[in-house]
Amino acid sequence: MAEALPAGISARQLNEALTRFRKIVGDSWVFSGEKARSYHDPYPVADDTQSHRASAAVAPASTEEVQQIAKIANDLRIPLWVVSRGKNFAYGGAAPVLAGSVVLDLSRMNRILEVSEKFGYALVEPGVSYFDLYNYIQEKKLKLWLDVPDPGWGSVMGNALDHGVGYTPYGDHFGMQCGMEVVLATGEVVRTGMGAMPGSNAWQLFKYGFGPYVDGIFSQSNFGIVTKMGIWLMPEPPGYRPYMITFPREEDIEQVVEIVRPLKLGNVIQNGATIRSLVLDAAIFSTKSQYFSGKGPIPDSAARQIMADHDIGMWNFCGALYGPPPVTDALWAATRDAFSAIPGAKFYFPEDRRKSPDILLHRAETMRGVPKLTEFNFLNWNGGGGHVGFSPVSPSTGEDAIKQYRMVSGRVREAGFDYMGLMAIGFKELHHVTVIVYDQNDRDERRRLDELFRTMVREAAAEGYGEYRTHIHYMDTIAGTYGWNDNALMKMNQKIKDALDPNGILSAGKSGIWPRHLRGGKP
Amino acid sequence: MAEALPAGISARQLNEALTRFRKIVGDSWVFSGEKARSYHDPYPVADDTQSHRASAAVAPASTEEVQQIAKIANDLRIPLWVVSRGKNFAYGGAAPVLAGSVVLDLSRMNRILEVSEKFGYALVEPGVSYFDLYNYIQEKKLKLWLDVPDPGWGSVMGNALDHGVGYTPYGDHFGMQCGMEVVLATGEVVRTGMGAMPGSNAWQLFKYGFGPYVDGIFSQSNFGIVTKMGIWLMPEPPGYRPYMITFPREEDIEQVVEIVRPLKLGNVIQNGATIRSLVLDAAIFSTKSQYFSGKGPIPDSAARQIMADHDIGMWNFCGALYGPPPVTDALWAATRDAFSAIPGAKFYFPEDRRKSPDILLHRAETMRGVPKLTEFNFLNWNGGGGHVGFSPVSPSTGEDAIKQYRMVSGRVREAGFDYMGLMAIGFKELHHVTVIVYDQNDRDERRRLDELFRTMVREAAAEGYGEYRTHIHYMDTIAGTYGWNDNALMKMNQKIKDALDPNGILSAGKSGIWPRHLRGGKP
Repeated sequence: MAEALPAGISARQLNEALTRFRKIVGDSWVFSGEKARSYHDPYPVADDTQSHRASAAVAPASTEEVQQIAKIANDLRIPLWVVSRGKNFAYGGAAPVLAGSVVLDLSRMNRILEVSEKFGYALVEPGVSYFDLYNYIQEKKLKLWLDVPDPGWGSVMGNALDHGVGYTPYGDHFGMQCGMEVVLATGEVVRTGMGAMPGSNAWQLFKYGFGPYVDGIFSQSNFGIVTKMGIWLMPEPPGYRPYMITFPREEDIEQVVEIVRPLKLGNVIQNGATIRSLVLDAAIFSTKSQYFSGKGPIPDSAARQIMADHDIGMWNFCGALYGPPPVTDALWAATRDAFSAIPGAKFYFPEDRRKSPDILLHRAETMRGVPKLTEFNFLNWNGGGGHVGFSPVSPSTGEDAIKQYRMVSGRVREAGFDYMGLMAIGFKELHHVTVIVYDQNDRDERRRLDELFRTMVREAAAEGYGEYRTHIHYMDTIAGTYGWNDNALMKMNQKIKDALDPNGILSAGKSGIWPRHLRGGKP
Repeated sequence: MAEALPAGISARQLNEALTRFRKIVGDSWVFSGEKARSYHDPYPVADDTQSHRASAAVAPASTEEVQQIAKIANDLRIPLWVVSRGKNFAYGGAAPVLAGSVVLDLSRMNRILEVSEKFGYALVEPGVSYFDLYNYIQEKKLKLWLDVPDPGWGSVMGNALDHGVGYTPYGDHFGMQCGMEVVLATGEVVRTGMGAMPGSNAWQLFKYGFGPYVDGIFSQSNFGIVTKMGIWLMPEPPGYRPYMITFPREEDIEQVVEIVRPLKLGNVIQNGATIRSLVLDAAIFSTKSQYFSGKGPIPDSAARQIMADHDIGMWNFCGALYGPPPVTDALWAATRDAFSAIPGAKFYFPEDRRKSPDILLHRAETMRGVPKLTEFNFLNWNGGGGHVGFSPVSPSTGEDAIKQYRMVSGRVREAGFDYMGLMAIGFKELHHVTVIVYDQNDRDERRRLDELFRTMVREAAAEGYGEYRTHIHYMDTIAGTYGWNDNALMKMNQKIKDALDPNGILSAGKSGIWPRHLRGGKP
């Protein structure tokens, strides 16, 4: 299989780079040809499935090796695409935006450098997965909880750097980040925050250090290679009580969000609680063919049957209470009272679920930070296995929620897919994440998906809604919607890019940011 | 009075700049000679009180005027020193690091652009003070609380940008910042986060937008001029109960901090609670001469008399409970139980304070976000009026607290000053802020202070403690302590500085960051 070469790089140059990389990391940690296959996008969305193929990959074991690789890449102008573990398959996995890039795979750097129960933090390398950190904490019997996203095999660091979210009170992962070690494109190593003080004892305790707070520029960017990161962990609370509330009508989402907002702002709902649509939940424990054998989205009658069979609603709210019983009792009373305003709302603790108890039990694990992969059962909903996320952010109002729902579900169903969406109110904003499950081997379906996605981005932007993260294939498209004042923010980001990565070797095209020499045709 | 000229700028060039500034902002908003006096450091710490004198000041009324001023400053290479309101008198007020800089005074830009009760935020210009925003909220009867630092006349934006802290659950001011408008040195206007999307409806709701999260680089820096900023405001809680706990012995600080840390991590103590030393509290309502007429720090006998007269301890912890009574009752029971382990601890609600009730009443206001200036009564403690803050960050352990206390109080007393310190546990870190009150008109005292300060910085750094903010006079000194790996972080900051401010016109020397042409002799 002929792999793409990076633009402007000859096969000879690439081979020279790989030879030099082998001298640093050893023969077995440079991958090319068939061996680089695992770095392909597992679920390509484009018509042309070659457009984001890596040429090779290199997997260093240490910060020093990362420095040496960066220096070689600078010498030879080899584009590197940096991934922590590359396991976010809904957004491109380990595949680069720029075809022919060499993946700098940090998954071998998987040391858990420190976990402090006293202060509640971990210092990890990029390759540490949620499973790794969870197992470590269990083995040592530390009274700490993680906050996990759905893919438990993902990188703790990578998720935070990509502004990922979870389901406990520590759900804003980048917000819980404290202190970084970064290898700059030119090979120097920087430590941020208190880490810039030799002998500091507060690197993972205080974010800001002295002077500009720079950590954020290494998130969703290509300005440096993060090799260590602190993440704050929640002390095990003195009590935990997960619950589920179901709502029977699709239009209930409007009232649900109006109820959730003040409860979130007042910290009555303490965690990253989510409101999930019928099919997203149903797909955890059933398949489409059990209910509908036709083409296109399931009809209303099938939806009703699913609701009846499993005691779930058109929308299902999963939340949890954290604290000692007097506190959680008070919070629950306020929560229950507020949601009781919605006709037909049903309230469940785990022991109340006679039908399909797993739907809450599964969430009950996630909301206490147990990493899992269960959520990805939804891939079996209609076979074909591909999935991609569409993730606009909007104000947390009922009006926006129902408008978002109608816009997105309308387009998704029109394109022949089922609507599988969740709404998560972080603090003041609503993340509306829609997963589109498609047949990745069907070129026509990929084309339809691509058109659908671009339509949704355009229509969302016209209403002032922007995506907070995206698949590699749409990074330019999304970045183009953040164009206020003649792309002033992008122009500033390009200046920082050129200053910190003068040869433009790191993750070309990440978040729409291209190095100078590849900026020509780009928006 | 001859004012200093900026290095390399002639009187003619400066006059040309001021003439052009006048055309933009009007004659009455450019200040020079005697009229620039209010921009001097109100409490100079140096031997030479001229070393941080501005040459002039210009006060624009709008973002557009800021853009035009930046362009002129670029043309003529005039160094600008940017202040929001310049009211943080413990750290230099409006005075520049670089003598001869023209102060870019943003205090006229004082519009409150929006306050949302629904979402809990304000969008403000740099000149908006805590008093302004508080009055606005009271007038409109909005159910929102501010989080305020001690100087109520300070800028809401300026305090957040300087990583200031307050006393409610929203005490991390930069953490509560959401969305900025920034005029770059070269005159372009950038909006960050969701503000980069034209027509966005979530600028103050979601921090990260798409791509790198850049807001942090405009804090404690000289990379741009922030002209608008969103700040999150707490919804009025359904209950509020301030309290005070006194501890009789200086060594109690060790146990107090060991008790506070887990309570903070577990969110039992919900707010930016502080542990204040005897003299800091006593200075709010008494003067030194009432207790001691000698030279140097007060003796132990005077300390005991103050404690007896006012029912306060050697350390006094002020906290508050926020929420409905069942929640606050549970939190109080846990708090009281924990502190009861300390022999001689006394517990007070406001109604329990027979002697000196003001000490808690004053804090009770601050802890519910009412801006005040009462705290600065401490200036009257021993006359002379000068004060400066020394603010190292350390881990929140008893061991570090007592070590910090002994190091700092020892040096302070040795130099002839009273120890007036507070310890605030933000989340995982301890801010130890010591205010040194000195006679600013006594050159010898200024010299002693300067030597003391430099000694404390050096000794703290040797133990791994770094300052989180500082007076303009010590910015290079503090920055020098963050020198890990051959000053790697500073070198990176300099690259960003050069990229975003190529002519080096903005706030030379801020946080130790100098423009290229002035970097020569600097560490």
